[in-house]
Amino acid sequence: MAPLSLAGYEAAARAALSAPVWDFLAGASGTESMPIAARAALDRLRLRPRCLVDVSEPDPRTTLFGAPLAAPLAVAPMAYHRLAHPEGEVATARAAGEVGALFTVSMFASRTLEDIAAATTAPLWLQLYWLRDREQLVELVGRAEAAGYRALVLTVDAPRVARRYRDIRNGFTVPDGISAVNVAPALMSASHQERAGASAIARHSREQFDASITWADLAWLQERSSLPLVLKGVLTAEDAVLAAEHGVQAIVVSNHGGRQLDFAVPAADALPEISDAVAGRCRIIFDGAVRYGADIARALCLGADAVMVGRPVLWGLSHSGSAGAAAVLRLLIDEFEEVMALMGLPGVSDFGPAGVSRS
Amino acid sequence: MAPLSLAGYEAAARAALSAPVWDFLAGASGTESMPIAARAALDRLRLRPRCLVDVSEPDPRTTLFGAPLAAPLAVAPMAYHRLAHPEGEVATARAAGEVGALFTVSMFASRTLEDIAAATTAPLWLQLYWLRDREQLVELVGRAEAAGYRALVLTVDAPRVARRYRDIRNGFTVPDGISAVNVAPALMSASHQERAGASAIARHSREQFDASITWADLAWLQERSSLPLVLKGVLTAEDAVLAAEHGVQAIVVSNHGGRQLDFAVPAADALPEISDAVAGRCRIIFDGAVRYGADIARALCLGADAVMVGRPVLWGLSHSGSAGAAAVLRLLIDEFEEVMALMGLPGVSDFGPAGVSRS
Amino acid sequence: MAPLSLAGYEAAARAALSAPVWDFLAGASGTESMPIAARAALDRLRLRPRCLVDVSEPDPRTTLFGAPLAAPLAVAPMAYHRLAHPEGEVATARAAGEVGALFTVSMFASRTLEDIAAATTAPLWLQLYWLRDREQLVELVGRAEAAGYRALVLTVDAPRVARRYRDIRNGFTVPDGISAVNVAPALMSASHQERAGASAIARHSREQFDASITWADLAWLQERSSLPLVLKGVLTAEDAVLAAEHGVQAIVVSNHGGRQLDFAVPAADALPEISDAVAGRCRIIFDGAVRYGADIARALCLGADAVMVGRPVLWGLSHSGSAGAAAVLRLLIDEFEEVMALMGLPGVSDFGPAGVSRS
Amino acid sequence: MAPLSLAGYEAAARAALSAPVWDFLAGASGTESMPIAARAALDRLRLRPRCLVDVSEPDPRTTLFGAPLAAPLAVAPMAYHRLAHPEGEVATARAAGEVGALFTVSMFASRTLEDIAAATTAPLWLQLYWLRDREQLVELVGRAEAAGYRALVLTVDAPRVARRYRDIRNGFTVPDGISAVNVAPALMSASHQERAGASAIARHSREQFDASITWADLAWLQERSSLPLVLKGVLTAEDAVLAAEHGVQAIVVSNHGGRQLDFAVPAADALPEISDAVAGRCRIIFDGAVRYGADIARALCLGADAVMVGRPVLWGLSHSGSAGAAAVLRLLIDEFEEVMALMGLPGVSDFGPAGVSRS
Repeated sequence: MAPLSLAGYEAAARAALSAPVWDFLAGASGTESMPIAARAALDRLRLRPRCLVDVSEPDPRTTLFGAPLAAPLAVAPMAYHRLAHPEGEVATARAAGEVGALFTVSMFASRTLEDIAAATTAPLWLQLYWLRDREQLVELVGRAEAAGYRALVLTVDAPRVARRYRDIRNGFTVPDGISAVNVAPALMSASHQERAGASAIARHSREQFDASITWADLAWLQERSSLPLVLKGVLTAEDAVLAAEHGVQAIVVSNHGGRQLDFAVPAADALPEISDAVAGRCRIIFDGAVRYGADIARALCLGADAVMVGRPVLWGLSHSGSAGAAAVLRLLIDEFEEVMALMGLPGVSDFGPAGVSRS
Repeated sequence: MAPLSLAGYEAAARAALSAPVWDFLAGASGTESMPIAARAALDRLRLRPRCLVDVSEPDPRTTLFGAPLAAPLAVAPMAYHRLAHPEGEVATARAAGEVGALFTVSMFASRTLEDIAAATTAPLWLQLYWLRDREQLVELVGRAEAAGYRALVLTVDAPRVARRYRDIRNGFTVPDGISAVNVAPALMSASHQERAGASAIARHSREQFDASITWADLAWLQERSSLPLVLKGVLTAEDAVLAAEHGVQAIVVSNHGGRQLDFAVPAADALPEISDAVAGRCRIIFDGAVRYGADIARALCLGADAVMVGRPVLWGLSHSGSAGAAAVLRLLIDEFEEVMALMGLPGVSDFGPAGVSRS
Repeated sequence: MAPLSLAGYEAAARAALSAPVWDFLAGASGTESMPIAARAALDRLRLRPRCLVDVSEPDPRTTLFGAPLAAPLAVAPMAYHRLAHPEGEVATARAAGEVGALFTVSMFASRTLEDIAAATTAPLWLQLYWLRDREQLVELVGRAEAAGYRALVLTVDAPRVARRYRDIRNGFTVPDGISAVNVAPALMSASHQERAGASAIARHSREQFDASITWADLAWLQERSSLPLVLKGVLTAEDAVLAAEHGVQAIVVSNHGGRQLDFAVPAADALPEISDAVAGRCRIIFDGAVRYGADIARALCLGADAVMVGRPVLWGLSHSGSAGAAAVLRLLIDEFEEVMALMGLPGVSDFGPAGVSRS
Repeated sequence: MAPLSLAGYEAAARAALSAPVWDFLAGASGTESMPIAARAALDRLRLRPRCLVDVSEPDPRTTLFGAPLAAPLAVAPMAYHRLAHPEGEVATARAAGEVGALFTVSMFASRTLEDIAAATTAPLWLQLYWLRDREQLVELVGRAEAAGYRALVLTVDAPRVARRYRDIRNGFTVPDGISAVNVAPALMSASHQERAGASAIARHSREQFDASITWADLAWLQERSSLPLVLKGVLTAEDAVLAAEHGVQAIVVSNHGGRQLDFAVPAADALPEISDAVAGRCRIIFDGAVRYGADIARALCLGADAVMVGRPVLWGLSHSGSAGAAAVLRLLIDEFEEVMALMGLPGVSDFGPAGVSRS
């Protein structure tokens, strides 16, 4: 029997993947307290259902930057999908297209941006770290535009990669041929060879990422692309307001899967102050331990326009490739559709602050 | 020795029933977090006892829609009592009559409405899901009226049945002869045969239940019956007010035993805002993990007129049929009567907001 | 080595006493949740120490109704000390006298009021349940006055004895010769023989205790004795005010060791509203899971004039008779004296609301 | 592989040290609840990171009383470092000097003040208990001034040493040659011989420490030294204000490692009211279960100018002497520098109340 819930795919992935790969995917930074705190923050939110509403046809569809989606659901940017399945991001993209979810392709995708785009009808966004080598950044953006990507997602919570003890203990390095597909290979592999061992990824980030960029630098990127700009990793009302003021079209409220700042405020706790402060001036996407359709409902109630889901997609991918990734996404959508029915909120726009209370 | 508390009956039932039947009765939807949250919400409520009040004769008696009750206690609607004991709802009804509790008969009772009515002096209410086949609904209502049922309890938190993983994993189906006693058998068994396996009950609900009904539809039902209308599954002040405005005589504040919307606000947390909003315009019944006489006291303090108890009655039934169900109900009443004495609140109308605080 | 803390005496008592006797002493009513909640309420109170105060001689001495005490500490009324040690209350009284604590003798003491009084220099109070047989009550009061007892402590949280499952399961009855020493033996033993088994004590209370008494009845008792009247088992501001208004000289804020109303508001949570409401009109004694000297400090900060300690005294008694009971009391006083030094509050009257905060 | 985090050094130290020494270092007073409460108070503080700030060069440097520090980090005063490593405080001092941390030398150091000073470039402070023998106190202060110590840290939360059951059970005494290096040996060893066993340290404190000193006595000490005066063990706004008013230059908000007042308000909970009340009139140092770089950030956000770290330094010392102690301090600084980058707060003065929220 196929897993009935995301937890089943998690168990299957843990069994199927090698320990270092599992650790790389499942691990978080520091004490790894962040994923637990992120779930706890979601679980404090209790749903307030309405009754006697026509829910014969709950409709989870929405649009984001003009692209129609089967549900307010996106695959979060994650590096190296080929760690989970040989087809890598191509399989994920196909899955997203089949179910109607958005797919945020990582700059560290293990398939080319073009191959990914060719495989899917899903709207694609490209995630970027701001490289010291701005030419390479511009080249990537150009390739994304040419391949039909619809937005740029600049990760702003990772001026460097945080310490992740599992990877250090495992001496984890990304296998050749999986890394460095879209960013300059020479640079990447040099780094990997030189500093083999624990901190390979962290050290690489120190070399490659430009930790000096500020709000003022956004204009440089905005001038070089007509694509909407999304900032990922915003956790305060203050920064959300700055984003809106700098012409950012969407922000992703995120803890980076618990892989960056340990002990940060959980995304679900940050969401209300952010949606209050933004007041509709830009889109808000929630990314924080989404595991159930109810989490989509929670995030929408607190002001999100959509949610991102990360690791579960890789669990599905490792279980059965594209079909598994699609099954995971479909489960979330089906669960969300059920929550819509049971909450008496048949449309995505029906969700609002009255839909949740805090226990 | 007979069990001394409901927990003892639970242990006995778990030992006596087959695993799939136990799972069907004990299970909840999704992560099964709701029953735990429901208990936690009750346990946060601490009783504030008064002293030096004449409690020589605490009197738990009350009336509901004119019917005298030995205590503000009703058996919650549950399907298929014959899963717990061959006599099924007839035994439950006899027990309720003996102890003086109200009995809410499920539309999916495994004995006929008429047999149940013939077996008891207890006031009976009939629970209904709104069927797509309105003629069948009207026929059921007519039979209930003819058999002396005193109210209709429309379940409004189940436009469809939520996913319950235990039943899916067990491939649980209700045995022939137990289901489909009061609703069109052909329809039911067709459904069961066609779609044997995990989601039998859930799929059946999708076929049979009308998920499109709204507040406006209540009038149709109210026109077809002189019985008071009760809505079961209200969890917000907003809907409680709407109920009062639509001529509903009582609402049941309920999480459906944790079997419908996972992560919903616990009934005990919803109760205060609801009783404030209703302000006496309709009766309020609490249904949410009642396991102790103290829970009756808690609910009354927060504005309920009575409580419903569900699974424990089936535990009693499986333990020793009608006698066991009666013992369970009697335990709750005895415990409540003791709480009345120890709280210095000798009458049901003495309970109010000052009787509880929140820890 | 003698136990270093009360926990050591508890372990020793559990090992030394028979299971039914241990269960009778340790047990609580219903789910036995109350002792845990009582400790949790204390543990939420964090001490706010002051520094650079002269604490070379912290002085835990105080007076209660004119009687000097080595510390604001009393032995709580408990029945049948001979269950813990053959000398029973005589040993406890000697211990209280040696350390300078007050001793509240239970009406169900297993030694005569006179023998107890003869054995000690400790101030003695007599605890009473209001018996249906008022002549017996008056006789007891007269004997207490004659023997030099200094106050009457009327228990008001036990119009009847709550259900205690351990005793029921054990069929616990008090051995002959231990019970019924101060109250009419015929009556007691008749009751015990007639209804041997589980609910012996509970049933006896139903026969003997007058559950009808109210505030108005206090005058009858007050007219028959010149001793100060103390009410034990007050948990609300409302009743504390009534007590003060009815000429009660002290109230004991208590959960009856968790043996009466399960799920009640913990005494430590009730204390602030009570001391606010009383505003000095009568003395306040705290009785709620005192296990550390810090608990005395906590209670004083919240407005108590003294605390009662219950089970630990019997642990000491079972460990080594009078010496053990004295050691337990001395440990509490020594710990409290240390807390006084470390909090910079060298006198009992230095404790106040600023001494605690809530976590 | 060297431990990657402080937890690794803790495990190594527990394995390497004898049980009584481990217990002496790890133990706390009373129920040992305080270290757990101290961590819980820190963990309730969630970090609010800012993005798009230039964090290419986070700078953890600061100054304290004019001394430059590599980070706002000091070694807390702890007795007898030679219990952890034969070189004792000389090794610790060298480590502090290498990494640029401040070192607070305990009056009960197991190396002479002069040897410690000779070994390091680190700024040194001398911790003092107020001895009954004021001449000895003055002599110590004089030696410290002569040896270049830069401040006096008067411990004000220990008018006596609290009961610590581990040491009592172990009959722990400090080995000859480790204790009594800077304070009169005759006195110390007399005490130790006379009262061998459990309470050796506690009894010694009763003999030696002057528990009668008050705010008025500070002037006596201030007149005898030109060094800045720091009070360690302040936990209330009231005392912080008094400190500022008495010319104290810094206070250490501390629970004394959980070794003094059990059940006290955790230092992290006390910090906000203290920094509000002090309003910059003196420096504030936080000392309360610092185990991560994030804890430095938390304390700075709540108004601290620096933090002290205690036991982890001894873990490092026992692991590999000076190198281990330095590694522990460097880990904290590196982690803090990473937190600065990930929080978008590149300078120590960028931290403020907006950097944390409470979950």
